[in-house]
Amino acid sequence: MRRRRPPPYTPPPYAVAVPVAPVSFASDNYAPAHPEVLAALTEANSGHAVSYGEDPWTERLADVVRRHFGEHALAYPVLTGTGANVVALASVLPRWGGVLVSRHAHLHTDEAGAPEQVAGIKLLPVAAPDGRIAPSDVERAAVDLADVHRAQPLAVSLTQATELGTVYEPEALRAIADAAHARGMRVHVDGARLANAAAHLGVGLRELTTDAGVDVVSFGGTKNGLLLGEMVVVCAPDAVAGLENLRKQAMQLASKMRYVSAQLVALLDGDLWLRSARHANEMAALLRTTLDDAVASGRAPGLAFTQPTQANSLFATLPPGVADRLRARFRFYDWDAARREVRWMCAWDTTPGDVEGFAAAVVAELGAAGSAAST
Amino acid sequence: MRRRRPPPYTPPPYAVAVPVAPVSFASDNYAPAHPEVLAALTEANSGHAVSYGEDPWTERLADVVRRHFGEHALAYPVLTGTGANVVALASVLPRWGGVLVSRHAHLHTDEAGAPEQVAGIKLLPVAAPDGRIAPSDVERAAVDLADVHRAQPLAVSLTQATELGTVYEPEALRAIADAAHARGMRVHVDGARLANAAAHLGVGLRELTTDAGVDVVSFGGTKNGLLLGEMVVVCAPDAVAGLENLRKQAMQLASKMRYVSAQLVALLDGDLWLRSARHANEMAALLRTTLDDAVASGRAPGLAFTQPTQANSLFATLPPGVADRLRARFRFYDWDAARREVRWMCAWDTTPGDVEGFAAAVVAELGAAGSAAST
Amino acid sequence: MRRRRPPPYTPPPYAVAVPVAPVSFASDNYAPAHPEVLAALTEANSGHAVSYGEDPWTERLADVVRRHFGEHALAYPVLTGTGANVVALASVLPRWGGVLVSRHAHLHTDEAGAPEQVAGIKLLPVAAPDGRIAPSDVERAAVDLADVHRAQPLAVSLTQATELGTVYEPEALRAIADAAHARGMRVHVDGARLANAAAHLGVGLRELTTDAGVDVVSFGGTKNGLLLGEMVVVCAPDAVAGLENLRKQAMQLASKMRYVSAQLVALLDGDLWLRSARHANEMAALLRTTLDDAVASGRAPGLAFTQPTQANSLFATLPPGVADRLRARFRFYDWDAARREVRWMCAWDTTPGDVEGFAAAVVAELGAAGSAAST
Amino acid sequence: MRRRRPPPYTPPPYAVAVPVAPVSFASDNYAPAHPEVLAALTEANSGHAVSYGEDPWTERLADVVRRHFGEHALAYPVLTGTGANVVALASVLPRWGGVLVSRHAHLHTDEAGAPEQVAGIKLLPVAAPDGRIAPSDVERAAVDLADVHRAQPLAVSLTQATELGTVYEPEALRAIADAAHARGMRVHVDGARLANAAAHLGVGLRELTTDAGVDVVSFGGTKNGLLLGEMVVVCAPDAVAGLENLRKQAMQLASKMRYVSAQLVALLDGDLWLRSARHANEMAALLRTTLDDAVASGRAPGLAFTQPTQANSLFATLPPGVADRLRARFRFYDWDAARREVRWMCAWDTTPGDVEGFAAAVVAELGAAGSAAST
Repeated sequence: MRRRRPPPYTPPPYAVAVPVAPVSFASDNYAPAHPEVLAALTEANSGHAVSYGEDPWTERLADVVRRHFGEHALAYPVLTGTGANVVALASVLPRWGGVLVSRHAHLHTDEAGAPEQVAGIKLLPVAAPDGRIAPSDVERAAVDLADVHRAQPLAVSLTQATELGTVYEPEALRAIADAAHARGMRVHVDGARLANAAAHLGVGLRELTTDAGVDVVSFGGTKNGLLLGEMVVVCAPDAVAGLENLRKQAMQLASKMRYVSAQLVALLDGDLWLRSARHANEMAALLRTTLDDAVASGRAPGLAFTQPTQANSLFATLPPGVADRLRARFRFYDWDAARREVRWMCAWDTTPGDVEGFAAAVVAELGAAGSAAST
Repeated sequence: MRRRRPPPYTPPPYAVAVPVAPVSFASDNYAPAHPEVLAALTEANSGHAVSYGEDPWTERLADVVRRHFGEHALAYPVLTGTGANVVALASVLPRWGGVLVSRHAHLHTDEAGAPEQVAGIKLLPVAAPDGRIAPSDVERAAVDLADVHRAQPLAVSLTQATELGTVYEPEALRAIADAAHARGMRVHVDGARLANAAAHLGVGLRELTTDAGVDVVSFGGTKNGLLLGEMVVVCAPDAVAGLENLRKQAMQLASKMRYVSAQLVALLDGDLWLRSARHANEMAALLRTTLDDAVASGRAPGLAFTQPTQANSLFATLPPGVADRLRARFRFYDWDAARREVRWMCAWDTTPGDVEGFAAAVVAELGAAGSAAST
Repeated sequence: MRRRRPPPYTPPPYAVAVPVAPVSFASDNYAPAHPEVLAALTEANSGHAVSYGEDPWTERLADVVRRHFGEHALAYPVLTGTGANVVALASVLPRWGGVLVSRHAHLHTDEAGAPEQVAGIKLLPVAAPDGRIAPSDVERAAVDLADVHRAQPLAVSLTQATELGTVYEPEALRAIADAAHARGMRVHVDGARLANAAAHLGVGLRELTTDAGVDVVSFGGTKNGLLLGEMVVVCAPDAVAGLENLRKQAMQLASKMRYVSAQLVALLDGDLWLRSARHANEMAALLRTTLDDAVASGRAPGLAFTQPTQANSLFATLPPGVADRLRARFRFYDWDAARREVRWMCAWDTTPGDVEGFAAAVVAELGAAGSAAST
Repeated sequence: MRRRRPPPYTPPPYAVAVPVAPVSFASDNYAPAHPEVLAALTEANSGHAVSYGEDPWTERLADVVRRHFGEHALAYPVLTGTGANVVALASVLPRWGGVLVSRHAHLHTDEAGAPEQVAGIKLLPVAAPDGRIAPSDVERAAVDLADVHRAQPLAVSLTQATELGTVYEPEALRAIADAAHARGMRVHVDGARLANAAAHLGVGLRELTTDAGVDVVSFGGTKNGLLLGEMVVVCAPDAVAGLENLRKQAMQLASKMRYVSAQLVALLDGDLWLRSARHANEMAALLRTTLDDAVASGRAPGLAFTQPTQANSLFATLPPGVADRLRARFRFYDWDAARREVRWMCAWDTTPGDVEGFAAAVVAELGAAGSAAST
């Protein structure tokens, strides 16, 4: 019996000539994979392995996930964040179930109608000004449970950290979960940035999920240093059904699953998940304090932050023209163009130097805009 | 501006202790990724890149695909073979369209109802004894085009190479495409093993697709040496609509798409796709001739092949008990357990030694079974 | 408080001038509504009634259905036969469930992909030469229950009477139900012509459903003398979930439900269902014996029946040209044009005179064709 | 050839003993069918007719609809309002299309997720305080047309009259249609109460649809005196595709379609549609002015109307307890229980006496509540 090893690395003749990209504050998925993740992938690339999840890496992942999420937790690697969300929700909902979400939820705004098209799930958006929904939202929605004309609100989906960079405390999660469970509703967490929330709060993954009454989680990998890979984590096995069938049917079942599982093991077996998320949060905090100082000292006229900075993103409004001039050098996205609100996001690989350079550029553009305006 | 490089490789502390797997003739997706593919991935893991496909690797892939499939061809990397099939079919079909398929088609038998669930597409199976459907099947199905009570057969999906290891000649494809187009139907090729078909026929990818009248292709990567990655190739841009929207909605849009594209570039920029597929075919041919010789010389009592061996798989019926005893040493699948038919499959990394060892074991088990039977 | 009564009937000024239709052997849904059904509708058209089913007629229907199907049976009026089938199947299946059907099943051939589009349900057709599936079909399908790549065959749908005019005996139903239940599968009966089956067998509706192990039934009204109305009957309440929600979601919930329920009460409260179905069967039997006699005496050269005549339809092959010439006077459908097979169907209002006239025309055309052929 | 006539009416033995219902201000679908509609149904119940729409009544309906909606208009009878909406929207949308709607839209709040489940259509709700959406809503939504992560807002659905009893003027419709068409979006009108809007405005159906740029309409029948029947009217045939296939697939195709078409002909051939809608509006206006007078003269303490009364419904807030006491005698629905808002609705058969009796009861309860409160 043999173990094949890859040959020594030779730069491939077909290597793409990559133009040097500007430093980006656009998204944590602009960042490359973490070297430890790539090393794990390389390590996994040896010999035959049974496909579709009967491989040693996926088995190891199951152990690692139990360690983080509790002894009954189950791990189902998938391929995209949207895929994780739809599979997770379909596993807790009957055909007639709808989902209570924040109107800012990625699920609602940025998944192109996948929940509706793939699983026929109606989303029921609520206002949630800072991205967080409240137990009272759950109570209000529950009145529709008696009405056959309404999509039945049988699950609530929380994003942690939210799309606005805010974080639910464990107590807030528990209050929502209690309100939901009392009415027969299930609780899903879209944890594309669950690691960032845990890093901000200084708690473990279990405190934010299983222990808080969460039934099922979409656990994000790609935004936290993987090449490609997410995971549905079932905290409450009694709350779900058919997860393996749903994953296949939703086209989220990797044939060579070892390559997804090995990345997730690399992320979660040690503390890579926490190191990377904490670093991204710290870079966001550094950018926030640097610019807050600039505002306080009058060097950043017209800059106003619109949300607290808890995870790895910042939201701010800018004077006219500033965002577009900044984008000549740094890529980032408008959040709400109508009110000139932008989002700046840090990643596992953002450096303090990157932050300083960017903050200086922001201050410089604001100063230039201020001078022009006051002329 | 900077380019970050991964640090030198150190075996990760969390490396999974892999049990030595038996040599497998189960599936080409038991094989690892080809070293050149992994090298390309490593090469791509540097610096920030715009997500969702606006990256240099995806741009390079577009060039490479035009070179292989024709100047108007379009490349859409996706994540699974089922995903490629559903996205491709949805792009050529209105909501009321059905798809003519072989009853052996992976689409019909092994995709867990994804076409039906994700896109509401009804599959219309035809007999196809050797896995290949015929122009006359298209003609017969077309009578339903006038009937509002029938799912409208507006596309035909061909698997190339078929699930039974057979291959459509370019002329056969052209005849089907002509029959289909004459009736307003589109032609899709599920090319999970298109490379194996091309290698068998000694023709290019274009001859088997664009030049034969095929409208859209699911091009397989994972079964031919990728870690994870497939691609929808549009041969006839006028035949499709909404592909980018459909890919996102079907949860097949990778955020860090460079990692899928870089693998596909590695496969297709040089001749890796052809080398790997040809090798897998040759190993299957070697196994076939070795066992045919054994049958001819009376050393393989009870072994009968049920299909020609054109691509990288073999189908055979065995005496009772033989398959299970062989499986103690070599993993492979039953194809039709009721008639004791098994499938044996070779991959890019199967060696002549693997084949010889396996053939010897088959002959030994058949001999043992024959002796027992004649006692 | 008041009860409004319709005013005396005056022929409406907008009455459509109806061309006199040829006598039809095309379908039982060419026939008008039975006068007793129309009378019940007129009776129901008085005063306000709570919408969506909280009305006295729907309450009365619940009683009537319990009388016919057993004390635990539940009645859910719906609008179309396809609607009844999809709602019934969705109520017994999880999202990943597929349905074993005869390849002749209306569900599979004539519902335009509604199960797939509306509920994402994959149908799994089996051969069933005379329209009836067998316990062994259930057994064979069940092997896929262990395989995540397969749509899970979690229900079997039987058509009673079948699309080929044949009928399942109670013992045959019980054998299938036992085979299904032993494997965790549910049993659905598409009873668009359940009344015809009961009339043929001389048994009650309960013997053909609840007592035979059937879980849920689509009970046909329109083909048996209603204007418009079908019903899902739940025989085994523990086997279903969410029926009211599914009915609304599938757009099968009538707002003024009293008008559907009143028709169904008219059909089932007395013996109208049985009188009408028995009459239709008898007319089919009369046509069959008349033509069998003609065949036996050599007056019907080239006519061959392809199925037994048990319910209200006949299937026969005819010499070239005969069907089209007959259709100049009598409307009916081809069943399998490729083999010149036609279907002739009788309804509650077919008269012996209609049958005699039609049989005579068939014999005349066959004679003419025979003479031409022998010339 | 023969024409069968129903026998003289005899009260059926199975007639349901109907409890005398309280006068209802709950919904226009509590009302019975109009006698002229029932007469038309009776007239249609004669002889065989080809099923699924090839009958003389459906042909006549096509003429009638062209007269009302324009020479290119097409009529497709369907079975429920939700069915009409989903079929109409599916006919103007690709798979990736979403629909801009008022957050009060019946489509969004009261169709149990049917658009999402049946057709995978994501609804995109906007605020619309009085139920009417504005051209600026269309403009704002259109920015998502460039973004693959968003459901593409490719249609706007307007309810006419709105769920809040308000009405779009033709000019308002035209402005929305122009804004939509300029961005490649289609315009749908949910006209469950289109007749009430036309009656209020004193214009024809064409001015409110085809001439205002509307592409496709759900035309309501049941709420305006039919037993059961709605209709998709296509104003712009170039804007739709596959309507017949979609209607069948959505389980909205009546087999004995003559019975739906005959009712719609009865409604639209003369002026029954207008007489009935105008009457219902007038009764609502009478109730409004009666109660406005009571408010003005201090006899209705605590009553406040929350919307203008343009069509046949009123919306008002009431002091605590008043609604429930009123409901002991008159059935009606809460609209927003949290703010004690109720809806009162008149129908084609509401009489001035009904209105006077109800208004008197409201005033009496308000007086009693006022006295109690001031004690």
